[in-house]
Amino acid sequence: MALPPADDRYLEDYRVGTLEEFGDVLIEEDEVIDFARKYDPQYFHTDPVRAKDGPFGGLVASGWQTCGIFMRLMVEHFVPTHASLGSPGVDAIRWPQPVRPGDRLRAKVMILESRRSRSKPDRGIVTMRNRTLNQHGEAVQVAVVKLLVPRRPAA
Amino acid sequence: MALPPADDRYLEDYRVGTLEEFGDVLIEEDEVIDFARKYDPQYFHTDPVRAKDGPFGGLVASGWQTCGIFMRLMVEHFVPTHASLGSPGVDAIRWPQPVRPGDRLRAKVMILESRRSRSKPDRGIVTMRNRTLNQHGEAVQVAVVKLLVPRRPAA
Repeated sequence: MALPPADDRYLEDYRVGTLEEFGDVLIEEDEVIDFARKYDPQYFHTDPVRAKDGPFGGLVASGWQTCGIFMRLMVEHFVPTHASLGSPGVDAIRWPQPVRPGDRLRAKVMILESRRSRSKPDRGIVTMRNRTLNQHGEAVQVAVVKLLVPRRPAA
Repeated sequence: MALPPADDRYLEDYRVGTLEEFGDVLIEEDEVIDFARKYDPQYFHTDPVRAKDGPFGGLVASGWQTCGIFMRLMVEHFVPTHASLGSPGVDAIRWPQPVRPGDRLRAKVMILESRRSRSKPDRGIVTMRNRTLNQHGEAVQVAVVKLLVPRRPAA
């Protein structure tokens, strides 16, 4: 199933059971280091030489950067960008495999639940399971993500 | 309680019930926009003018950037940087209040659990509750975060 165009997506379009797969992002060493210097300055994210003796046997991306790349893919392919209301939260983030420079990432998203807000009748919450995969098909990040999405206005 | 210096912290130093508070980071508009263009390009994170009519009434930081700022504070003040082994995962991330340009953030961390790894006796897992606060003392991000930490080597 394909979602409607990004500027015409509403709660009703996010159907439980839908599986979407999108993206093809190359992550390069300079981006890994640049992100980590600002947000996660551990040596195995910032120093390619020292990282060789570290727990991952080489430089790896911060897990938060992998979350950011997943988010960009979500914004480019999944979120109703005209009307997004943000996210109520994210649960159960895991990083089963490290992301290394030169990896290519894509996202797989399964819609688990869609429900109307109890307090605000003009919107609802879509809950999905995300798997971010590398070029070998290995999951490098998984999470359960919620989005606040408006209901389709009455015609 | 104060932790030992960053290069002398081991599993045994992260005691359940310990509360640590650290950091004072100013977040500025250009950083908000720069992060969002790369990792969360929704208009309320990238476009100060259009954001005025958006769900937050102005530009706000991506929640993932707030996670990144929290992580930097953790690396600067809490993680055993000489021997960190990464994180097994993060649960229950919420963003109760938006982060706006000009906000100052700090982190409060409570250690909930510390246990030895079942499979690898040289390390353990520290679980903590994080609250990232703004200058008004409001929580802008909360999460339950796990760290993999080595045990102190035998003397």
